[in-house]
Amino acid sequence: MDEDEKNRIHKHKMEKRKEFQDELVKNNNKTKELLIVYTGTGKGKSTAAFGTVLRSLGHGYKVGIVQFIKGAWQTGEQSALSKFDNLVTYEVTGEGFTWNTQDRERDIAKACNAWEIAEKMLADDSYKLVLLDELNIVLRYDYLPLNKVLSVLEKRKMHTIVTGRNAKPELLEIADLVTEMKMVKHPFREQGIKAQQGIEF
Amino acid sequence: MDEDEKNRIHKHKMEKRKEFQDELVKNNNKTKELLIVYTGTGKGKSTAAFGTVLRSLGHGYKVGIVQFIKGAWQTGEQSALSKFDNLVTYEVTGEGFTWNTQDRERDIAKACNAWEIAEKMLADDSYKLVLLDELNIVLRYDYLPLNKVLSVLEKRKMHTIVTGRNAKPELLEIADLVTEMKMVKHPFREQGIKAQQGIEF
Repeated sequence: MDEDEKNRIHKHKMEKRKEFQDELVKNNNKTKELLIVYTGTGKGKSTAAFGTVLRSLGHGYKVGIVQFIKGAWQTGEQSALSKFDNLVTYEVTGEGFTWNTQDRERDIAKACNAWEIAEKMLADDSYKLVLLDELNIVLRYDYLPLNKVLSVLEKRKMHTIVTGRNAKPELLEIADLVTEMKMVKHPFREQGIKAQQGIEF
Repeated sequence: MDEDEKNRIHKHKMEKRKEFQDELVKNNNKTKELLIVYTGTGKGKSTAAFGTVLRSLGHGYKVGIVQFIKGAWQTGEQSALSKFDNLVTYEVTGEGFTWNTQDRERDIAKACNAWEIAEKMLADDSYKLVLLDELNIVLRYDYLPLNKVLSVLEKRKMHTIVTGRNAKPELLEIADLVTEMKMVKHPFREQGIKAQQGIEF
């Protein structure tokens, strides 16, 4: 097949594709406050959430963030967020990963405290986006009553993102958009490479 | 099992986990300029890349971005990036998705032009991170010679992120970190919901 032939076939295929895309866009005309879940064992869950937060801030929207596990975000994120001080409410309530604290009762108390803050945000429609970072971890360990969390999420008034591995099936059930970040290759485990500034924190 | 028993078992489990984590961190002491690929059909690929860009900018690192498909990032991203004007070089070279242009020759010319810019960035070690957004799309249509792209990527001097569906197996082969964003639930297709400002653009 020569180049002209390739070009002609490409044009035909793309015309059909455009018809399909246009139809899709025409039919998809509803708006909805989305519940978005990023889960799975791969990298990029909190990073995609952070990217969405910055996108919203870029539009001048008010964003609330509750971090259920301290330490997931560090100086890089905080410095970027500080450029939007007037728009972002950022609460870090947890105390690090559970293997660092090793204290279940204290972890539960912190999770409840974080959830109280989250609940207030989720009821305040001045926020256009609320991020509940690593909420899945806390739910996985049953540190919060799942039914209560789900019922608050169902009543929320804004786009909401939940991150963390091992999302509960009941959460996926009520979510609008779910992406599983699947680990295909990971330099930590396989190559002995440490977490590097600017990439992982 | 009562709460005391649960707390005791938890503590024991987390002590073991901490030993494992500490060992992992101790053994993982290498640094490397990572080649990161975000692929798959799920949402969050470019968003996770954008999140990593903002994290790096937050550290004061210089970042280069080449967008191989125009339109993937819009006002939200651009406004966030503009807060770091002195650190970020942002080149948009493509002309929209291939079903919009419908012109294969023109798409190829644009891809080559974008790649020239990318190649210069990848040779300039003042950049700490280079993002090649939607490069996978261009490679998938064979608009660029794969071997040439791979050899430049192997010689690059900084962390590099490549996004887009249908990543070539040869690219995954040389990558350090690969996450497949797997679509579990998507509101466009299933619920007739349109792309919304602050979430998707």
